[in-house]
Amino acid sequence: MKTYLDCIPCFIEQSLWVSRLTTTDERKIRKVLDEIGMMIKDISFNSSPPEIARLVYKKIGEILNVYDPYKEIKEECTQTALKLYPFLKKEVEQSNDRLLTAIRVSIAGNVIDFGANRNFELEKEIDEILKKDFAICKYEEFKEYLESTDEILYIGDNAGETVFDRILIEELNKSITYVVRGRPVINDATYEDAVKAGLDKVATIVSSGTDAPGTVLETTNEEFKKIYNNAKFIISKGQGNYEALSEERGPIFFLLKVKCPVIAKDIGVKDGDIILKVAKDTKRIN
Amino acid sequence: MKTYLDCIPCFIEQSLWVSRLTTTDERKIRKVLDEIGMMIKDISFNSSPPEIARLVYKKIGEILNVYDPYKEIKEECTQTALKLYPFLKKEVEQSNDRLLTAIRVSIAGNVIDFGANRNFELEKEIDEILKKDFAICKYEEFKEYLESTDEILYIGDNAGETVFDRILIEELNKSITYVVRGRPVINDATYEDAVKAGLDKVATIVSSGTDAPGTVLETTNEEFKKIYNNAKFIISKGQGNYEALSEERGPIFFLLKVKCPVIAKDIGVKDGDIILKVAKDTKRIN
Repeated sequence: MKTYLDCIPCFIEQSLWVSRLTTTDERKIRKVLDEIGMMIKDISFNSSPPEIARLVYKKIGEILNVYDPYKEIKEECTQTALKLYPFLKKEVEQSNDRLLTAIRVSIAGNVIDFGANRNFELEKEIDEILKKDFAICKYEEFKEYLESTDEILYIGDNAGETVFDRILIEELNKSITYVVRGRPVINDATYEDAVKAGLDKVATIVSSGTDAPGTVLETTNEEFKKIYNNAKFIISKGQGNYEALSEERGPIFFLLKVKCPVIAKDIGVKDGDIILKVAKDTKRIN
Repeated sequence: MKTYLDCIPCFIEQSLWVSRLTTTDERKIRKVLDEIGMMIKDISFNSSPPEIARLVYKKIGEILNVYDPYKEIKEECTQTALKLYPFLKKEVEQSNDRLLTAIRVSIAGNVIDFGANRNFELEKEIDEILKKDFAICKYEEFKEYLESTDEILYIGDNAGETVFDRILIEELNKSITYVVRGRPVINDATYEDAVKAGLDKVATIVSSGTDAPGTVLETTNEEFKKIYNNAKFIISKGQGNYEALSEERGPIFFLLKVKCPVIAKDIGVKDGDIILKVAKDTKRIN
């Protein structure tokens, strides 16, 4: 997905927010806004938003001399999610369609986001998503791919959401490779965050190597590229991964909650909708 | 009031919005964002937001070659407000305290804003404001000043709001000088807009000469400066005028609805509050 003009005010707003999270020094925050302001003219609108966000957050990290501004927030989100784990597990166990409910749970975890839409109320939104109709629901195709393979590449998104992913992974009952970012960016899950969510018990965790808040393929490492190119069934979680991979062909299933009007417009759904979408040229198996 | 860091994302967002209102040419809109982005580093945070907004909107006008992008919107707002005039008049006539109700009506008109908060529902908000408690209410002082003078300088804000001001002016029953901007900026009222609202029938309309969306004194003309400096009782409507005049001393009464968290913080009230505030060093008369 390309970057839209509407992404620009959002980048500036995010820059201010993460700066405030990191420091109270108004001069430093001012410098961040000055520098990010000057970056606007260099943005290629053919790049995807995570490609731009990668550069924006890198610049902010340099100016504020901070490596992982969301460290504590990520820790809190993971702990909150772990407390919800028994409840979520029960929701799945008591449902008529365990797999579909686990997919819903995994999407519900996607509300944990400190990029596009930070004003979330986790428990309220979980309740809503567990009942909400899908705007796009390629569940039949999902099941076909699931039956046809023993190995799944599961591309994670945010810390805390990881716990919700674990619920789905436990239902999939396949050999799972769970992909995390190569280094901290916004509240995206790194290796450490995934382990804290207990994903090492149910999956092989690998790093895509990227420092973008989305799987921007050119920024991924060789190991990941190999796994990605050989994958027969890919689950891509969240907006950042959708933005980076939406033009890709092949067996990718996008699970996300739409959290901004730009993505809603790009997909052709409404802000707030939940999606189980399939990448173009993903052929039906049966 | 000085400009806060939070004003920066808001300027960028407003730039995008007014550009979209003016053109569908994405390259031109892109150029606006590029140029406004580069302006950030030159912003003096000791200036008030309308001083900065003045430069921002001037630059946008130059790039898009547009003089009055809000012309139609202003016209619509005035027509909508004129239709509400009989209802508003009745509200005043049927109230226990006509003057206070007219002040409320005038503040209700201040929800018509295409700068800080464009997502307003006029009729719903009028209803709310007619019943809402004031967060700051210097009504006794207001009445004292009203009794002590025959002439009032009334500094207007937005087109459409002008009609609501007329309701208050009709209750004041004094010799009123109604001040408009010197040229179009956002949806602020110009001479033409004030005449369309019928203000020429109840007041002497004068232009402050400013091209800022607020009464930035250094940008006003000599005629206005003279009237302003001699005024014994000034009514200042809206956020833009508050931002520009909040540090002034003397007999200014600020009537506004707070429409952004920055101003709420500056005044020490909540976003959404209604205010009848008095400038510092405005002495009690009795």
